[in-house]
Order: sequence, then C-alpha cells, then structure tokens
Amino acid sequence: MNTKQIVLASRPKGMATVDNFRFENIELPEMKAGDVLLKGLYYSVDPYMRGRMNDAKSYAPPFQVDQSIEGGVVAKVIESKSDHFKAGDTVIGGLPWREQIIASEKSIKKIDTAIAPASYYLGILGMPGLTAYFGLIHIGKPKPGETVVVSGAAGAVGVVVGQLAKIHGCRVIGIAGSDEKIKLLKEEFGFDDAINYKTTTDMKKAIAALCPNGVDIYFDNVGGEISDAVISNINFNGRIPLCGQIALYNSTEEPVGPRLQPMLLTRSVLMQGFIVGNFQSMYPEAIPLLAQWVKEGKLKFTETIVHGFDQIPSALIGLFKGENTGKMIVEV
Amino acid sequence: MNTKQIVLASRPKGMATVDNFRFENIELPEMKAGDVLLKGLYYSVDPYMRGRMNDAKSYAPPFQVDQSIEGGVVAKVIESKSDHFKAGDTVIGGLPWREQIIASEKSIKKIDTAIAPASYYLGILGMPGLTAYFGLIHIGKPKPGETVVVSGAAGAVGVVVGQLAKIHGCRVIGIAGSDEKIKLLKEEFGFDDAINYKTTTDMKKAIAALCPNGVDIYFDNVGGEISDAVISNINFNGRIPLCGQIALYNSTEEPVGPRLQPMLLTRSVLMQGFIVGNFQSMYPEAIPLLAQWVKEGKLKFTETIVHGFDQIPSALIGLFKGENTGKMIVEV
Repeated sequence: MNTKQIVLASRPKGMATVDNFRFENIELPEMKAGDVLLKGLYYSVDPYMRGRMNDAKSYAPPFQVDQSIEGGVVAKVIESKSDHFKAGDTVIGGLPWREQIIASEKSIKKIDTAIAPASYYLGILGMPGLTAYFGLIHIGKPKPGETVVVSGAAGAVGVVVGQLAKIHGCRVIGIAGSDEKIKLLKEEFGFDDAINYKTTTDMKKAIAALCPNGVDIYFDNVGGEISDAVISNINFNGRIPLCGQIALYNSTEEPVGPRLQPMLLTRSVLMQGFIVGNFQSMYPEAIPLLAQWVKEGKLKFTETIVHGFDQIPSALIGLFKGENTGKMIVEV
Repeated sequence: MNTKQIVLASRPKGMATVDNFRFENIELPEMKAGDVLLKGLYYSVDPYMRGRMNDAKSYAPPFQVDQSIEGGVVAKVIESKSDHFKAGDTVIGGLPWREQIIASEKSIKKIDTAIAPASYYLGILGMPGLTAYFGLIHIGKPKPGETVVVSGAAGAVGVVVGQLAKIHGCRVIGIAGSDEKIKLLKEEFGFDDAINYKTTTDMKKAIAALCPNGVDIYFDNVGGEISDAVISNINFNGRIPLCGQIALYNSTEEPVGPRLQPMLLTRSVLMQGFIVGNFQSMYPEAIPLLAQWVKEGKLKFTETIVHGFDQIPSALIGLFKGENTGKMIVEV
C-alpha cells in the first residue's frame, strides 16, 4: 500500500523554507503483530521542531535528512493487529508525517473524544497546555498579587500561561505581535493588559508602565530583545521559566546580547530552562486540573487550523512569521 | 575622643582606585545606654563591596559619598554601656571602617575565640563559608559522582565550595589565575584538577578535557568569558549557582556576551542568583556543620592577611587584581 510522506530535504541555513521539505510516495511495510494502521487526522506543528531541523544536540534528537519528519499526530485506527486498539479508535502519538501510518501499539495512546475535541489533545490537554502548567506552576510558583509577564502570549503555550496566572490571582501582561492578538488577549483570554511589540518603540518603558510593581515572573517563549526588555524590569526573587527562544531559532550566528548574570545575581533571580518531558511523572496531576478548568470555562483555548496534508511545511514555517493565534494544527 | 575613618571620596568609573577613598579624623559621638566602644581588630574586604561603590540598586544599598564605608568587622569591646557585653569581649558586626567604633548592642554579636581564631568568623564560619555552603548544597544540590567546576576557586568562597563538593563525593575542577594557586588547590585543598585561565588559550577545550562527563554544577564566582567556556560544557539538568561576577564589577559599559538562554533551554539548566542573606533562617543548620568539618580537618581555610588600617582600601582593590588566596582580611 502506498502513502505520501514528508521528509527533511535539507537542513536550513537561517530561516527555514518549504524547500527544506520534500513530499514522497512510499510503500508502507507489512503490519506485524501489535501494529496498527492509522489515518492521520490532525498534525501538530510546533516551534521546537525548528531545532530538530539542525544537526545539533538538544532535548529532542535532530531529524535526519531524507527521513520522515515526526511530530504529535492525532489519528484514527483503520486496521489493528493489536489487542489494545480496534478500528475506529482515536489515538495520539509522536508519529511520522505520513497520510497513513503503520505504528506499534507502544507508540500510541487512546484519547477520549467525548470529553474534548480530538485536536485539544495536541493543545490544551497536550504538550502546550502541560508546558504552560508546569513552567508556570512548578518553576514560576505564582503567588496572589504578583505580576506575570508572558511573551509569545498569543501562542499555544502563552494563552494558557496567562489564564493559569489569572486563576492563581496574579496580574498578567502579555506580549504579542499584532493588534488583533492584543485585543484577543485582553477581551477573550482575560489578560490585564498586553503590548504589541511591533508597534512599541521602547519595550523596557512600556513594560515598566504596565508593571508598576515590577515583574515577579517572566514566562519566556521568545528570547532576544523582547526578553532583554522584560528582564530589565525583573524584581528581587524573580523567576524566569525558559520555555522557548523562537526569536533565535532561525539565527545562523551565535546570538549575542547583554550579559544576564549581573542582574540575576544582584536580584537573586532564578532562570530555569525546561521541557515538558521533565515533568512526565506529574502529568496525571495536571491533566484533570486542566480539563476541569476548561469545563468550567476558566481556561479557553484557540486553534489556528490549516487544512490539507500538503500544507504542513508552510504551517510550520508560519509559526516563525507569527501567523498563528494559539495552537497551530493541520487538519487532513 | 578622636578616631580615624575611611569614607567614599568619589564613585569609581571603571576600576576602583585608592583615590576613591579618603581618610579623615572625626570626633566620636557620646555613648548612649546600650552602646559599646569597640576597637577594630579584623576588617573584611569583599568583592561585593565594589557594587556598593556604585549608585545602583542591588542587594546591598550603595555607600554614600563622604560617608564611612561599612563592612564585616571583628572588634574588641573597650567600654560598654550595654548589659549584654563587657570590656574584653570579642564581637562581630557590619560596622563602619573606623579604628574605634561606637556601636549599638543590636548591631553586634559575641563570638567564641576558643573554638576558632577570631578572623575565621569573617571567613569559613562567616559570610564566605556560608555562601559556599548554601550556593553549593541548596542550589547546586550535588550528587555523588557528579562533576563540579568552580571559578574564582582560590578565593574565600571558592576553596570552600571545592572542599564541600569533595565531601559530597563529587569530582571538582577549579579555575584560578596563577600557577601557585593551581598548585595550592590541588595539593592543599584536594581539588581533582585545576586550570590556570591566564596561561590557557582555549578554556572551552581545557574544561572539556578535564570534565569528560561534562559539567553538572558550575559555581560561578567570576562571570565573563571564563563562565562562557564553562557553560558551553554544561550537562542536561545542570545547575549554575551565581555567586559573583567579579570580572564585570569594574566595567563601565553594559557587558555583552553570547546569549545563554538557548543553551539553558535546550539542556534544562537552572541558573540561580543568590546572596547568603536569602538563607539566613538556615544559618543555625550550617554553622555547626562547617565548624565540625573544620575540626575534622576536612575543610581547610586560607587567609591573606594585610596589616594596618591604612591598607584597607588597597586590600579591597587587590581583590580585583587577584592578589588574594582565600579570604582577604586586614588586621589592625
């Protein structure tokens, strides 16, 4: 049986483009005992994937040239040689970008589409929601009355961070890159205020103006000069969960900036890089909480859904151009 | 009664010099109830004092121009109007740089010179020892078999960090600035190895060679390019207690360097600025442990003692020229 797949054609130098990807028709292997045949429904595109396109040591191994890209995929079981899955089940896993996929039963998990739409398992109940939860709650440790600033605030992780901070009694300021996003953050997601960095000339001042008591927690999704401006407003005993550095993912040279250590030292600030996988043993604590807040309407979630398997590479690249609000997903 | 004091004559631009200080003769005020008259015995000079010479927000308030410098002083009680102290007692406190000092009973504590020399209360049993203890144990959280790198290793904090790491079963590499210091670290203080950064052209490679399993904890006393080289060798889940940035204290421009966040993020690294005062409530836990290790000979301690009240300013400046091994103290 034939299917279409997307492989890494070449490693990008600087900004990734659709030419770094190639579509191929391949013959699927025979199914073995324990395998299932899947049809992909939703393909997740995420900023961290840019790092995997480089040949560099990181938390996820690099993609290999001429090999299929892999990512979070929600799929339907078409045929099963596993005792644990049957045709019609909806499942999730880290899977290759193929229209049809042969997967081992060990690489997928069943999801319950009765309590939430299938795509939510790539978002609020999946990697972005859990990343927001553990970064804010376990590293940031928010206290009522504190001020939280979130960059990449309109992204899949950012909107959840802001709402979780409000649930915990904090003042929340978002940073995003368009007036529509600013409006959405304030009107839809309950941020106390938000800053459009593209139309703001002095970010340091703008943040100081909206954070008269300084910044207690800076949830950093972007890095670069936006982060410099926030960190210059950080309070004594401030905390900086480092979640993403999207501003730097496409840079070809070693990025240079102001040295942070003097400020972190004189203000007793904690900065902690993390990935959600570090907290895997605590997922069972977090998922029911998130699901409950979603049900109660305290936690809203937005998806940018692009249609068609052929659109996956351009959807990924769109993340770096700010084309998404909330979680970017490709529906097939 | 007259005494001599040292005031801040002017704020330094760049490297501090003796011209930033001025000696004055002043009339001491009348003693009130609860006051004691002290004669200074040992005056502590410490790297953090350079920060207080600037007019900048930090963990300690800036010194004021034309006002007396203050620091850790061990002194003898000459006369007492306090019920808690009597003539002949040896005390410690944050006190002005004066030959004779009138101090409130609230600003000093008695020390026991029977169990350790008086000067040790400015070192291994005082601020530097406690800084090493809390930074390494409470932030670094060393585990047996891990690799610990310490910069400023021959300084008052550094030698303690290295020995505490050995007590906790770690491999310890020190970084210092002369062959004599390197020899001392290895032969006297039990470091597994040490690097002279002044004679090493490729620090990154040198550290990699001595840390074949990477760096789990980097105790940073110096900042700047030495730290860049260590941090490029940091392991997944590495920890960086930020204790000092002596390389940058005298810089006039905002220091610039490679951005750290991408590496902290991809390797899930923790960086935590701290001062010993953050851990004040836990001093009673630490001091007996340190005293016990000193008694058992597991924790050695070196002092560089300069003689004469008039030498205090040049002793402080000597810290930034690497003139000390271990704790720098002026004995009067």
